[in-house]
Amino acid sequence: MMSYDALLTYLRTTEALGQVAGRLGWDQETVMPEGAADQRAEEIAALEEVIHARRTAPAFADLLAGANPVDDVQRAMVARAQRGFDRSSRIPAELAAEAARVNAISQHRWIAARKAGDLAGFLPTLQQVVALQVAQAQALADGGDAYDALLDGYEPGMSAARLTAIFSALRPGLVDLRAAIAEKPPAPHLNGHFDEAQQMALSQELALAFGYDLSRGRIDKAVHPFSSGSGADVRITTRTDAADPFNCFYSTIHEVGHATYEQNIRADFALTPLGEGVSMGVHESQSRIYENQLARSPAFAGWLFGQMRDMFGDFGISDAGTFARAVNRVAPGFIRTEADEVHYNLHIMMRFDLERALIAGDLAVADLEEAWNTRFAADFGLTVPNPVMGVLQDVHWPAGLFGYFPTYALGNIYAGCLHQALRADLPDLDDALAAGNPAPALDWLRGKVQQHGGLYAPADLITRAAGFAPTEAPLLAYLQQKFGALYGI
Amino acid sequence: MMSYDALLTYLRTTEALGQVAGRLGWDQETVMPEGAADQRAEEIAALEEVIHARRTAPAFADLLAGANPVDDVQRAMVARAQRGFDRSSRIPAELAAEAARVNAISQHRWIAARKAGDLAGFLPTLQQVVALQVAQAQALADGGDAYDALLDGYEPGMSAARLTAIFSALRPGLVDLRAAIAEKPPAPHLNGHFDEAQQMALSQELALAFGYDLSRGRIDKAVHPFSSGSGADVRITTRTDAADPFNCFYSTIHEVGHATYEQNIRADFALTPLGEGVSMGVHESQSRIYENQLARSPAFAGWLFGQMRDMFGDFGISDAGTFARAVNRVAPGFIRTEADEVHYNLHIMMRFDLERALIAGDLAVADLEEAWNTRFAADFGLTVPNPVMGVLQDVHWPAGLFGYFPTYALGNIYAGCLHQALRADLPDLDDALAAGNPAPALDWLRGKVQQHGGLYAPADLITRAAGFAPTEAPLLAYLQQKFGALYGI
Repeated sequence: MMSYDALLTYLRTTEALGQVAGRLGWDQETVMPEGAADQRAEEIAALEEVIHARRTAPAFADLLAGANPVDDVQRAMVARAQRGFDRSSRIPAELAAEAARVNAISQHRWIAARKAGDLAGFLPTLQQVVALQVAQAQALADGGDAYDALLDGYEPGMSAARLTAIFSALRPGLVDLRAAIAEKPPAPHLNGHFDEAQQMALSQELALAFGYDLSRGRIDKAVHPFSSGSGADVRITTRTDAADPFNCFYSTIHEVGHATYEQNIRADFALTPLGEGVSMGVHESQSRIYENQLARSPAFAGWLFGQMRDMFGDFGISDAGTFARAVNRVAPGFIRTEADEVHYNLHIMMRFDLERALIAGDLAVADLEEAWNTRFAADFGLTVPNPVMGVLQDVHWPAGLFGYFPTYALGNIYAGCLHQALRADLPDLDDALAAGNPAPALDWLRGKVQQHGGLYAPADLITRAAGFAPTEAPLLAYLQQKFGALYGI
Repeated sequence: MMSYDALLTYLRTTEALGQVAGRLGWDQETVMPEGAADQRAEEIAALEEVIHARRTAPAFADLLAGANPVDDVQRAMVARAQRGFDRSSRIPAELAAEAARVNAISQHRWIAARKAGDLAGFLPTLQQVVALQVAQAQALADGGDAYDALLDGYEPGMSAARLTAIFSALRPGLVDLRAAIAEKPPAPHLNGHFDEAQQMALSQELALAFGYDLSRGRIDKAVHPFSSGSGADVRITTRTDAADPFNCFYSTIHEVGHATYEQNIRADFALTPLGEGVSMGVHESQSRIYENQLARSPAFAGWLFGQMRDMFGDFGISDAGTFARAVNRVAPGFIRTEADEVHYNLHIMMRFDLERALIAGDLAVADLEEAWNTRFAADFGLTVPNPVMGVLQDVHWPAGLFGYFPTYALGNIYAGCLHQALRADLPDLDDALAAGNPAPALDWLRGKVQQHGGLYAPADLITRAAGFAPTEAPLLAYLQQKFGALYGI
């Protein structure tokens, strides 16, 4: 076998096992019997052990060294595979296994702690998680910055210094915009009971309109909406709330953004390291541009208003303009996942600062709640009433996902860049959106971003697609324009 | 680590991966998007490659050699693991991979061939499958009997010679019983439209009555009913037909027999080689005794009659005796899976003879259809109208499962033995069955058979449970008694 082909064969097996692990995750969240949890943990650990062994095997190192790539795709493939080998190899197997074990236990305890509202009982576990994250970060950083080493796992090439600069430039504009909106009358809520089966029916229509290929995917209900899998098997989940159909519709569209990114990657990249989204930030850029810049646009909201009137009858809103404000309601709140576009990035900036301090050792886990609540009061003007509304709300830290949060904001920032560029290329896009048809924008994103999978580094990919290096400016301009118009600022 | 513990740790990882493979199979048959088939094949191949490597690894051989078992459980564990190592190691990895690849392709082509009724186009593929089975059988047999080597993979310790003796003893009684029944008026069919959602509701009730633990399992609809998984995650599927509710109810109870066997194995055997049913024959004995000796007993049928009358109203049968005959309708037919208790084993005997001839090289694949049809006319007095009703009906040969068929008949024979013994121990069982309560029989089976998992060899297990070595006589006596009474013979 040619040396490159031999590497590819090895990689395909490893990636196929990675897909299997993803499927187990889907199964666990959607269909697994409740009594199977402990056995499943052991099954996942066995699979992860095998995958980790393949990712750090001397035979793999030999294949990488002898690959001799001859074109850009082959070079990108080898580079991405080498990167995976390097990162996996730097962490001692015992440390990786211990961290996986503790993170799994911690997630379970977090669920119980959230149910009981008991932060104090959970802190010792979180302390263990943080300590193991620090140990892994130091092993990865090899003398460099520990937090950057974690961040690099989710957003290759990004650094805390660069994020700090971007966030510092973004924050004042967000704060000013929020203040201006706060002076205006608040947007209305929907009023009514929205049949959940009908919500699921409309959410499937929305998924199809946003390009989701159901022959290579499926939609199920789960407690948390998510997308999983790559290539020919990319599944999403959503949820319904009889009082709040937007939760279902916009969760679905968000997950379709993730899922179509995976579905639209070049078929010849399937089951290779290039066959999945290149970074968490770019992934989030797709889900957010689908959800926000496209589906929450006044044009598309106008179409959705008609659909919802037809399906649900009267729900207390009589015109499309008011409906668009309801879709884009701005209000401070405690929960990140429920935050509007203006507040969302402020939640992320706070988490970014706190988790850097935790990893640097500048903030003790014991002091985290006080730090969180103090910062929250300063940033949002609200007093956190209990830890469930505060530091216990997100699974990320309990699951050992440090360095992940900022990629959400980065996704918004990338989405802002892509949106500016695609609007310039598609001057009539609002006409299509007003007819419930986002296809022109989807085609643009597929061609410029999605099809490439892991071929280009994240910032390079956005630069190629948008025509300029990513900055926060387009996102801010978009928010000011959109919310200025909606709220008469 | 103690040497035995080190072996057990290794085995647990391998068995956990085996459970993952089983889950992929479940997923494929129930929820997988249709467009994911090719990718799934690659995922399964990757997992099987990893599992096969673990089952034949020199490190595994070392662990086996150094295990030093100190009690009966440890000795059984090591022996069963050693058996797995020996069988896996005898087949060259390239041959195993090639057979797996061809079997997968063959299954796909068989589905298409069945749809098109095209046997001729499928025969070259089947020829490949048979050739690879022969090659594997010879590698396994190492000079011994090739067919026995395949059979041993499904029923450890069994031989074609022993089966031939059992089947020869069983056949005349079945043929005589069939002839006697044929002289009597035929049993009626049900007449009506049976709501499929209500069928699913009653089938879940039946599953629970037969001891299925839904906290460690789930019931879904699929084209083919099956049970999959071991330990804490054992799932079953069933199907519905608006005209034939028995199909749903008895398929469900059959699969619950398989599933509860897995669920009732001692918890300390979970994720070890002893933590699953000991053989296909013993597995089938559980599904068949649940379905036939218990759920098709006149006593239980009487209870089911009342349930169905309450649920579905009138369906053209006015008394419990007639209903019991409908449940136990005897008629020759082309399809094995639809066969009654009297005809079923005759289907198996025919397949057993044909597949032995194929493996021995005494029957060419090109001559298989003629051999099938000639034998079928002789055994059943019916002319096979097309290959879909004949040689194309079962997945087993297209999937490379040679040596599997006789375990179905063996399951019936074991069930006959167990049933005779449990009736002797539970003289009032019919009173419980007439109240819809099979629990006394289930408890007996759990204690005598199911809890032991792979601890005892199949024949040894049945001998311990029944109190005598397995023979065909109890099955025949049971059939003669039951059908004699039902048909007034």
